[in-house]
Amino acid sequence: MSGTMTAVVKAAPGPGSTVSQVPVPTLGPRDVLVKVKAASICGTDLHIQAWDSWAERRIKPPLIFGHEFCGDVVELGAAVTATEKGAFVSVEGHVVDGTCYQCRTGNGHICENVSIIGVDRAGCFAEYVSVPESNVYHMDPGIGPEVAAIQDPFGNAVHTTLAGEVAGLVVAVVGSGPIGCCAVAVARAAGARMVLASDIRPYRLELARRMGADRTIDAGSEDPVAIVLAETGGHGADVVLEMSGHPDGIHKAFKMLRRGGRLSLLGIPSQAVSLDLAEDVIFKGATVQGINGRRMWETWYQAQALLRSGRVDLTPLITHTLPLVEIERGMELLKGGQAAKVILYP
Amino acid sequence: MSGTMTAVVKAAPGPGSTVSQVPVPTLGPRDVLVKVKAASICGTDLHIQAWDSWAERRIKPPLIFGHEFCGDVVELGAAVTATEKGAFVSVEGHVVDGTCYQCRTGNGHICENVSIIGVDRAGCFAEYVSVPESNVYHMDPGIGPEVAAIQDPFGNAVHTTLAGEVAGLVVAVVGSGPIGCCAVAVARAAGARMVLASDIRPYRLELARRMGADRTIDAGSEDPVAIVLAETGGHGADVVLEMSGHPDGIHKAFKMLRRGGRLSLLGIPSQAVSLDLAEDVIFKGATVQGINGRRMWETWYQAQALLRSGRVDLTPLITHTLPLVEIERGMELLKGGQAAKVILYP
Amino acid sequence: MSGTMTAVVKAAPGPGSTVSQVPVPTLGPRDVLVKVKAASICGTDLHIQAWDSWAERRIKPPLIFGHEFCGDVVELGAAVTATEKGAFVSVEGHVVDGTCYQCRTGNGHICENVSIIGVDRAGCFAEYVSVPESNVYHMDPGIGPEVAAIQDPFGNAVHTTLAGEVAGLVVAVVGSGPIGCCAVAVARAAGARMVLASDIRPYRLELARRMGADRTIDAGSEDPVAIVLAETGGHGADVVLEMSGHPDGIHKAFKMLRRGGRLSLLGIPSQAVSLDLAEDVIFKGATVQGINGRRMWETWYQAQALLRSGRVDLTPLITHTLPLVEIERGMELLKGGQAAKVILYP
Amino acid sequence: MSGTMTAVVKAAPGPGSTVSQVPVPTLGPRDVLVKVKAASICGTDLHIQAWDSWAERRIKPPLIFGHEFCGDVVELGAAVTATEKGAFVSVEGHVVDGTCYQCRTGNGHICENVSIIGVDRAGCFAEYVSVPESNVYHMDPGIGPEVAAIQDPFGNAVHTTLAGEVAGLVVAVVGSGPIGCCAVAVARAAGARMVLASDIRPYRLELARRMGADRTIDAGSEDPVAIVLAETGGHGADVVLEMSGHPDGIHKAFKMLRRGGRLSLLGIPSQAVSLDLAEDVIFKGATVQGINGRRMWETWYQAQALLRSGRVDLTPLITHTLPLVEIERGMELLKGGQAAKVILYP
Repeated sequence: MSGTMTAVVKAAPGPGSTVSQVPVPTLGPRDVLVKVKAASICGTDLHIQAWDSWAERRIKPPLIFGHEFCGDVVELGAAVTATEKGAFVSVEGHVVDGTCYQCRTGNGHICENVSIIGVDRAGCFAEYVSVPESNVYHMDPGIGPEVAAIQDPFGNAVHTTLAGEVAGLVVAVVGSGPIGCCAVAVARAAGARMVLASDIRPYRLELARRMGADRTIDAGSEDPVAIVLAETGGHGADVVLEMSGHPDGIHKAFKMLRRGGRLSLLGIPSQAVSLDLAEDVIFKGATVQGINGRRMWETWYQAQALLRSGRVDLTPLITHTLPLVEIERGMELLKGGQAAKVILYP
Repeated sequence: MSGTMTAVVKAAPGPGSTVSQVPVPTLGPRDVLVKVKAASICGTDLHIQAWDSWAERRIKPPLIFGHEFCGDVVELGAAVTATEKGAFVSVEGHVVDGTCYQCRTGNGHICENVSIIGVDRAGCFAEYVSVPESNVYHMDPGIGPEVAAIQDPFGNAVHTTLAGEVAGLVVAVVGSGPIGCCAVAVARAAGARMVLASDIRPYRLELARRMGADRTIDAGSEDPVAIVLAETGGHGADVVLEMSGHPDGIHKAFKMLRRGGRLSLLGIPSQAVSLDLAEDVIFKGATVQGINGRRMWETWYQAQALLRSGRVDLTPLITHTLPLVEIERGMELLKGGQAAKVILYP
Repeated sequence: MSGTMTAVVKAAPGPGSTVSQVPVPTLGPRDVLVKVKAASICGTDLHIQAWDSWAERRIKPPLIFGHEFCGDVVELGAAVTATEKGAFVSVEGHVVDGTCYQCRTGNGHICENVSIIGVDRAGCFAEYVSVPESNVYHMDPGIGPEVAAIQDPFGNAVHTTLAGEVAGLVVAVVGSGPIGCCAVAVARAAGARMVLASDIRPYRLELARRMGADRTIDAGSEDPVAIVLAETGGHGADVVLEMSGHPDGIHKAFKMLRRGGRLSLLGIPSQAVSLDLAEDVIFKGATVQGINGRRMWETWYQAQALLRSGRVDLTPLITHTLPLVEIERGMELLKGGQAAKVILYP
Repeated sequence: MSGTMTAVVKAAPGPGSTVSQVPVPTLGPRDVLVKVKAASICGTDLHIQAWDSWAERRIKPPLIFGHEFCGDVVELGAAVTATEKGAFVSVEGHVVDGTCYQCRTGNGHICENVSIIGVDRAGCFAEYVSVPESNVYHMDPGIGPEVAAIQDPFGNAVHTTLAGEVAGLVVAVVGSGPIGCCAVAVARAAGARMVLASDIRPYRLELARRMGADRTIDAGSEDPVAIVLAETGGHGADVVLEMSGHPDGIHKAFKMLRRGGRLSLLGIPSQAVSLDLAEDVIFKGATVQGINGRRMWETWYQAQALLRSGRVDLTPLITHTLPLVEIERGMELLKGGQAAKVILYP
């Protein structure tokens, strides 16, 4: 496909972005062109827009950013065999090399040479995106484009929550942003005995309740550790899912974990965190997992299964929809703290 | 406690049983006396009553039989420390030695020297039972005695279903007797994408539906393997729980399993079963698990958690209640196939 | 590369094979041409040569057979990126589709659409073979071609043995053919407390001893079950690796397994096997695994690690070497039972 | 048994200890009296002797300390059934309640109400010790008393090393004190491809070499992270066992771990440790385990199996033997850094 398209471009180092006309991407022999149906704004996109220190180190303008999306396959590279024109797909944002030790042992989600769509290569805030055929996942047509567009954060939650046992256990989710809210729903669907969710924003706690939290904790006015201990007879939560990335949340996550429990870390702290390893990990016999991305493709199968079966409903998280060209308004909504997922239509 | 009590006794080899007055059991130093609140009839009790070849080999009359029950602790042996008078308990039926390799490595459910209540030692179809203090499990008072009485079969189902992953997977339950119906509910609570349940009795299939089966299969008129394959795009079920114990059910259980799937065997066949190990296990890369009893005490914690949280409701399975002395009527109900769990009150 | 090459061809249905001049294979865009350095004869090749009922159903002549080999990459298809000319490689014999559920969840060894080199497509008893780039594994140059040629059966043994815990456990290997002997060495290297190996051929038992068996059992004159029980205080082996594929071996494998033990089935029985599932699986709480092929590529990494570190030495199994054109003599040696691995040089 | 015995007593708060005559311990109904054959000095004993801040908080004088030992059962409490007079035993130092959630789910090593021999109750630097019958482990008579006396630290190493896969993997041991040296031997026995061991004391590195390290690293003059990366093609170690407890060692342990690797923490840091969770845990997809004590009794079975089979030889670690009354000399040897395990004979 030739011609131009509308895209959101970080044109040069520094804050902001521009909506421009740019060439439609070309395809390598194993790439496919996806016509974007719906995209979604991630916290990472806010960092890129704001040009914080992480963005300054990582992003090489000019770049079309955005990495949460779904769409239709409209063109195939010459050697493509794994999909076909017309397929409705969501796209895994981690482009992996397929040849490193991790990729060759079922752990492509921690590929040694990953390149991320919308961060290291052209992203989805555009009419079209070129992606490797091996990055598309065929979505059930019964799943709406808004939900299909947020498989990346939902997959983070599925990966984190199902990285160990859940059924019959007490699960505490620290940080109730969109991924935390997804984790609440997954834990509930997977048979958790009780799901507790904390955050400092009442808006998010209300969403967590709607997604299935049995108990929400306002970390601004309540003591999450004390509440989790009280609700568990002093033992602590069997499973803690850390999704805030804040040092304070991380500290509390370790403190609210019971002996022998599992603590899965997904939220990314921007600085070093000081931990009492003796009390909080070693004597407890705890297991601490770092979670990155989505297992390819086990997580995707699990995610779609939970959605298709109706065990999880993500629609309460789709709080706003906008045309792509109004992306800045979407970003403002998110910064204002009164939105969960903002969907953009190109 | 001295005196006599009413009990159902297999007085001598041969069919039948008698309701008699017998001495209240005495206690060893680490035993407790449980006053039975509710007992339940198991298929094993029907075998003992009928005096089939298994019973003839295993049972040494005179014996009070029955092993599914709950009650209150009313008397403590001299050295008892783990419970107290007045405790509301359900009782694990496997009395284990605590010293064999299995017991000492967290696998007491397959103790090398197990003795079973109501089979190898005096059981619960009586006003009182003496059991080791280490066999009682404290029940939440919010759980009614009828449900507390069936923790043994419910525990079988919890053990079998949660012996591997369930969330997001297709689970097929072969045999929808009371344990199969419990497994349907557990699989559903644990996030199975789809739960299929088969049986040859419409009465049981109706119960399976009430317990949460998405699809029931009348194995008398439908082909369970074909249906499972059709519902899974030809792949087969991710998890198969075999609870019929019939050679035909077992064959089909293997055939309906997908490559790389898990088949957990709980139903006990009374004869050897011929299997196509090459196609059904080896080339498939299947995992086949033998499941026996309940993990002590992980299964019990899981079971109580699922009940207390409301994720599982067992009340539809409590189809009949009777005074203990009418046990023969209860057995007839079960043989007639129009009952699930029959509760007896001493 | 054009021209002709020498190859062993099953030219038409029926017993036997011919050494012929055939065209050098052509390459698809993602294939590589491997110049065979050393090949090895597998039991499967004997079935193809003899044209038994399995071969009659599966093999479509004309076919170059053979699937155990190593060699040098000498030509690359147009789109190949994962290897390069001159690479010394061993080749995974299972060509998988890369797109099915199994392949996409780290279980390509049980791909739903596998095609096997030397069975379903042209094999390695030839000067050159064309294989997908994704099927080659780069071998350490320090590993000799004879050992590099037998990574397929060695990988079977690694996969089977390391499919569960081994360190500190008693491992019984049933069937001491080449794969069984490899399993003995792997179990020993992985810290098994005791390795027992059975077979009916003294020649093989002697090899098993050389590969590290602590105790060999002549199943023709001794009772393997009794011996395993005697050596384990009556408990049975913690891990049993079934590599005979014979119904009698399989029966005994189940009987010699301890409660809670692991039985991994690799040997392929040619008919249904009758099992006492109640006693041997269910009451035991056993785990039975079907093992197929080699995990891609975890098994290969493990295999190479064990060889490079010197923890396993396969050279005692290389009992004969011959020119490729003398393959029939190699087959006779194997049928005579006085050989383990026969290496062929094209 | 009545009368008095020689014992090493922390008589009052403050540094030092005294060798005194004290009453032989009395037995509860489920206790046994063990006549100590050999005891061993642990680093914990040095803390108690020196009366550091940890000891000041935890120890309640007067206390007989010491917790690593073996001996013969010479007297039984009235209700003891699990052992007998004359049994040669090593003793698990963690006295657990047997009734908490952890104890009842196979995780007694992290019992919620643990009491430690020689720390919270009378220990083994004495002629006799009273311990619960459930704390003794019957040792094979072929294992000498010096080796039987150090099953506690050896068990720590077995527990840590075998808490995940080892065969074919690169294992790095950080800190080569006695437990680190044991871990080297276990990793080697369990089939590690390469075992690297670091420390700042050449004496310990020499011991690590004798126990089977393929490569030792003098952390005082070499860069352990750089060496591990160099030895692993830049990937890092598959498994890291942290046994130093020093913040610097812990930092390096995280840095030398490969993506997707396992880091097991046994060494106990005396203060909080600052970690780069983003890079070292989350993006890596690492698994971090806290390890405490010994699994009861899986670790003990594994430990004895490794010793009896000859796969592990602990005798190089028995560097000194002394009469119990010369314990202060033993402590000086350890502080001087030219000793590993010092055995004391009462």
